[in-house]
Amino acid sequence: MAAGSTFGTLFRLTTWGESHGPGVGCVVDGCPAGLPITAEEIQTDLDRRRPGQSRITTQRQEEDVVEILSGVFEGVTTGTPISLLVRNADARSRDYSELRDLYRPSHADYTYAAKFGVRDYRGGGRASYREATGRVAGGAVARKLLAQRHGVEVVAYVLQVCDIRGGVDREAVTRAAVDANIVRCPDPAAAARMIQAIDDARREGDSLGGIVEVVARGVPAGLGEPVFDKLTADFARALMSIPAARGFEVGEGFDSVTLRGSTHNDPFELREGRVRTSSNRSGGIQGGISNGETIVLRVAFKPTATIMQPQQTVTVQGEAVTFQAKGRHDPCVLPRAVATVEAMVALVLADHALRQAGSRLR
Amino acid sequence: MAAGSTFGTLFRLTTWGESHGPGVGCVVDGCPAGLPITAEEIQTDLDRRRPGQSRITTQRQEEDVVEILSGVFEGVTTGTPISLLVRNADARSRDYSELRDLYRPSHADYTYAAKFGVRDYRGGGRASYREATGRVAGGAVARKLLAQRHGVEVVAYVLQVCDIRGGVDREAVTRAAVDANIVRCPDPAAAARMIQAIDDARREGDSLGGIVEVVARGVPAGLGEPVFDKLTADFARALMSIPAARGFEVGEGFDSVTLRGSTHNDPFELREGRVRTSSNRSGGIQGGISNGETIVLRVAFKPTATIMQPQQTVTVQGEAVTFQAKGRHDPCVLPRAVATVEAMVALVLADHALRQAGSRLR
Amino acid sequence: MAAGSTFGTLFRLTTWGESHGPGVGCVVDGCPAGLPITAEEIQTDLDRRRPGQSRITTQRQEEDVVEILSGVFEGVTTGTPISLLVRNADARSRDYSELRDLYRPSHADYTYAAKFGVRDYRGGGRASYREATGRVAGGAVARKLLAQRHGVEVVAYVLQVCDIRGGVDREAVTRAAVDANIVRCPDPAAAARMIQAIDDARREGDSLGGIVEVVARGVPAGLGEPVFDKLTADFARALMSIPAARGFEVGEGFDSVTLRGSTHNDPFELREGRVRTSSNRSGGIQGGISNGETIVLRVAFKPTATIMQPQQTVTVQGEAVTFQAKGRHDPCVLPRAVATVEAMVALVLADHALRQAGSRLR
Amino acid sequence: MAAGSTFGTLFRLTTWGESHGPGVGCVVDGCPAGLPITAEEIQTDLDRRRPGQSRITTQRQEEDVVEILSGVFEGVTTGTPISLLVRNADARSRDYSELRDLYRPSHADYTYAAKFGVRDYRGGGRASYREATGRVAGGAVARKLLAQRHGVEVVAYVLQVCDIRGGVDREAVTRAAVDANIVRCPDPAAAARMIQAIDDARREGDSLGGIVEVVARGVPAGLGEPVFDKLTADFARALMSIPAARGFEVGEGFDSVTLRGSTHNDPFELREGRVRTSSNRSGGIQGGISNGETIVLRVAFKPTATIMQPQQTVTVQGEAVTFQAKGRHDPCVLPRAVATVEAMVALVLADHALRQAGSRLR
Repeated sequence: MAAGSTFGTLFRLTTWGESHGPGVGCVVDGCPAGLPITAEEIQTDLDRRRPGQSRITTQRQEEDVVEILSGVFEGVTTGTPISLLVRNADARSRDYSELRDLYRPSHADYTYAAKFGVRDYRGGGRASYREATGRVAGGAVARKLLAQRHGVEVVAYVLQVCDIRGGVDREAVTRAAVDANIVRCPDPAAAARMIQAIDDARREGDSLGGIVEVVARGVPAGLGEPVFDKLTADFARALMSIPAARGFEVGEGFDSVTLRGSTHNDPFELREGRVRTSSNRSGGIQGGISNGETIVLRVAFKPTATIMQPQQTVTVQGEAVTFQAKGRHDPCVLPRAVATVEAMVALVLADHALRQAGSRLR
Repeated sequence: MAAGSTFGTLFRLTTWGESHGPGVGCVVDGCPAGLPITAEEIQTDLDRRRPGQSRITTQRQEEDVVEILSGVFEGVTTGTPISLLVRNADARSRDYSELRDLYRPSHADYTYAAKFGVRDYRGGGRASYREATGRVAGGAVARKLLAQRHGVEVVAYVLQVCDIRGGVDREAVTRAAVDANIVRCPDPAAAARMIQAIDDARREGDSLGGIVEVVARGVPAGLGEPVFDKLTADFARALMSIPAARGFEVGEGFDSVTLRGSTHNDPFELREGRVRTSSNRSGGIQGGISNGETIVLRVAFKPTATIMQPQQTVTVQGEAVTFQAKGRHDPCVLPRAVATVEAMVALVLADHALRQAGSRLR
Repeated sequence: MAAGSTFGTLFRLTTWGESHGPGVGCVVDGCPAGLPITAEEIQTDLDRRRPGQSRITTQRQEEDVVEILSGVFEGVTTGTPISLLVRNADARSRDYSELRDLYRPSHADYTYAAKFGVRDYRGGGRASYREATGRVAGGAVARKLLAQRHGVEVVAYVLQVCDIRGGVDREAVTRAAVDANIVRCPDPAAAARMIQAIDDARREGDSLGGIVEVVARGVPAGLGEPVFDKLTADFARALMSIPAARGFEVGEGFDSVTLRGSTHNDPFELREGRVRTSSNRSGGIQGGISNGETIVLRVAFKPTATIMQPQQTVTVQGEAVTFQAKGRHDPCVLPRAVATVEAMVALVLADHALRQAGSRLR
Repeated sequence: MAAGSTFGTLFRLTTWGESHGPGVGCVVDGCPAGLPITAEEIQTDLDRRRPGQSRITTQRQEEDVVEILSGVFEGVTTGTPISLLVRNADARSRDYSELRDLYRPSHADYTYAAKFGVRDYRGGGRASYREATGRVAGGAVARKLLAQRHGVEVVAYVLQVCDIRGGVDREAVTRAAVDANIVRCPDPAAAARMIQAIDDARREGDSLGGIVEVVARGVPAGLGEPVFDKLTADFARALMSIPAARGFEVGEGFDSVTLRGSTHNDPFELREGRVRTSSNRSGGIQGGISNGETIVLRVAFKPTATIMQPQQTVTVQGEAVTFQAKGRHDPCVLPRAVATVEAMVALVLADHALRQAGSRLR
């Protein structure tokens, strides 16, 4: 894979694992020593990503129990690499044997074959959403570090499913409110309609996309390293690396296009004794550097590629064939993607908080 | 800057320079030896980015003459770092002295101050769009490499200014068509309206945003390194690092959200003797790896922060003050951003083409 | 640890694990797809590093059974990260409890405490030689790749123990000859004296240092990336990162100092149809790039810090105290270090072989 | 060159330039903002490296005037990349035209040709010692940062030329003492003999090697990132990347091999209120991390490859030929190498001082 499974400069995550191999996991290198962390805390985040949580997610049953293999001693990090392991449990390989000989539309089957020549066809192999387990486990460590050291809070939620969009108060939304319903949209009315839409899609053997929004509150001004490692750039990279991500926005995003400078610019003012903006259309980032306001990002997910309807495709020999998926599937990955989005944002912030330390002499 | 000015793993660009210092430039490290390249070829791309090209861009007059300082011998690259220098010429520092004492709204003045303590306030310093000179110079080398070695062609164009959107044939659009008008939108009718809108905005002392779309044709299947250095992720990082970028899309992007799996998936077929998709809603990338179809990306730019209208802000001492910009400005950065977008996409592809070499044993 | 546990650019090893935690291991990212590899092949190399092999190594008994957790499917690598796990078995933590309160001389106890504040004092934690397990496991994959893809062979051996130096034919020495005796010196007469010296040192409760030499045969000309990632530089970094390493040489090394240009230079000649040197005082590397001759490196190891004699030191509170080690120890780490040296050299060569692919246009 | 011209993680140096191109230089990225630095300070270090300083160095006359192109504003660093340019002046290309057609023994001519296919044959191109100009310029910034921020002092000197070894007090030696004679050995008696030996070698058309020792005083305990970015490993890489380097040692180095644990270990004691070692055979680094004692390193340089005697070699077509160098040459590179060694050590320490910031929570 030409070494593409490591993320970060100082707070660095390396993930590994395939859908149906012995397990998945990660190594977190660069976490400062002295951070209290337990397997239970990591488990809490993993449970939000794992399949089988509710009727609207895939029914694959995996307990996803995490084991800390290194880097934590007497309850605190030691500064050495933290290795986290999750064994694969309910891996019904037999469901996937037919995938060996064809390329599923809009999956990574063909591109992995084109790239690597060989391919672990069982459940999508490395391209399975199971890959995100390592991200979420590592992200849990980053979240703890951000909370403990910097007082930063990251909250992600489902903002939109298909054309149903919720209304969310970015300054007030909590994880509890997000987890209050199975679709993880903190707007209860919209959530109910989203769940209905997902149920409908499942019944039709179809799938839905949507938008996850994520806010980071309490981020100090000054994070981000121009000109290529701007905070915007690293968030974009982090979130666009998640399976099925197709679009990214900061602040007003694509809506800023139809505004004018006079209506988009955020005036500065002195508030609570420090320089603040009176609006936050910049989404907390200006010139690629955090300005102390709440960071606001969105990521668009395409509808899940797996559907239960017949589709045209080709075999690995290039013969036209009709393919119809069988077994368990997620008609909408959004509710589970929330944990991954949160993890990736936390990883970026943890890394940049460490990098920021060297910005100035005094 | 905690070392954020280097981009790429194998084909690596390091840029440097401020708006009003002695010059701007870059070092390209990792370009294969034996590539014919001349200063004139690089100059051609720089001329598309430089200010003062037409009445709709800033009237700052700079010739932006590039000098090759190393890495090219007898007309071809030698495999050693290519150092490119562009002297700053028309740098009227006196225009900027008033900027020392306040933070312009939605510029990087405040965040640079918060991060670094000190700040080169002349013309935005490193945060000036002049920084992109080094990107375009380095991108010209990448473009040559892609054309010569891989037959890959990258074409960017203005798709939308404010709410005026052009119609473009992605498979056929050429640089000549893009450069046929001063706004660089290859749809002549839309271009005329865009130019009018920019003229109007200038008259009003206001500014406009827009969308640049970029296509890469001829990219072989197999480029991209899951799970973090996916092609989608690296394109997102590259394009979101450009000043004023606020959103990124691949393929259908945010529009994919309201499609369903059954309407978004790209069926595979055998065409021209190889595996192709019959539609290209994936924008040429599946599972983070190129699939051989045309790559389609879009980047949203906010309206330029500099406007000629009075705005509320604070001084560096935190006192409220009204600020009104003087001097030259770009009411819409889009026509000049085209060259930068093209450069960044070329840099990503050149890097991944080199990385791809190690993907498989045979 | 500020992310210091990853090695390599394209063929990239990340190691993790402490002496007395649940296990040790590594992730190999960037190995090309299609390489046949089995747990047994990796096990073979691990068995050469593990303790308890013979009467001259530590009697800590660990089976060190490796498990492949990812990246290998149907017997070949898939191009995705290869995660390797070795559980810690015979970890008698009780032996180490007294180490909590003092700093052993010339161990890393004090420096880890100074750096991290907290410290896993059990058996040296991350600074234990057990850390090398991950290196050797990852190195086994690199060795297989080098052999299969490039026909490169890496052989390391004990050249010197204390003042006893063997004589070795660098062009002919084999792993079988190295493993023919327990000290891993392919000169049987010298080996016998080395074993005697180690036995004597153990009896005296003292320890010995020595020199491991390593040769790489069949390396093509052209590997190495000036000016900082020269082959010499990367070998030096790789070997000086091994615990107890104190010196590094290439070719004539420190002996070259007393030669003159006229007696040190390697004349070129045409031999076997290609450019060769008639001597090899350069050790196969010129200007930081391999020249096609056999690569010759040496690494000096200090005597093991653990000795059974009383030593002066201080407690963590700074009180002077006499310390005398108890339990199992290696009076000479050299015989086991051979596997680690071989692994590190293989890792460097595998990485540079991949990097070399992008050096020229044709 | 597959991107090998960048050094460092947070304090990052990128060098560029060939012997006979338009110039040489570097970009320093990641230097904290607020450091006072002038071109004169950098010039002081460059003057120690440049040719033509004295009768024992090459008579190539270059003024090597440095220009700061970016990253410094009103006398202090701004946190943005610092670009430094030195124009090549006295480049007599005509002296080198005969080098196009043959490979000089023990130069990099052949290996560059093998690697890159093309080669800038003028004066060794990138492999010329002129390449070190960028290192020394960047190292001057690192030295200033270390002095100002950390009170760290780096002093290098010629310890040995051929078989003449000086005696030096590592705790007291100053740059003034080093520069007191033209060979830069602070032992005046040894220096006189070294100068004589170099004069003799020049007369004979031959060349000499030697050893540069370097000490770093005032380095705080805790720098270095196990297990691969240990301080020992990074120093080794840094110093072995210098042209003509053939060996590296820390502390007792190769001499530690014949000591025993009981005679090599450094006992700890409480001195001046902190944990100190009563001897310093470890050379200030234990477990790859600084322990607060003076860091002691040595690097062995082979005799200069250029000699004025006839040598056997081959042409690029593989024909045997006798080659005899003409023109100016350095019979011993050691006096000028001192500045480069100092620069590289400073670069490593500056980088690790920044990385160390993230080691622990409090």
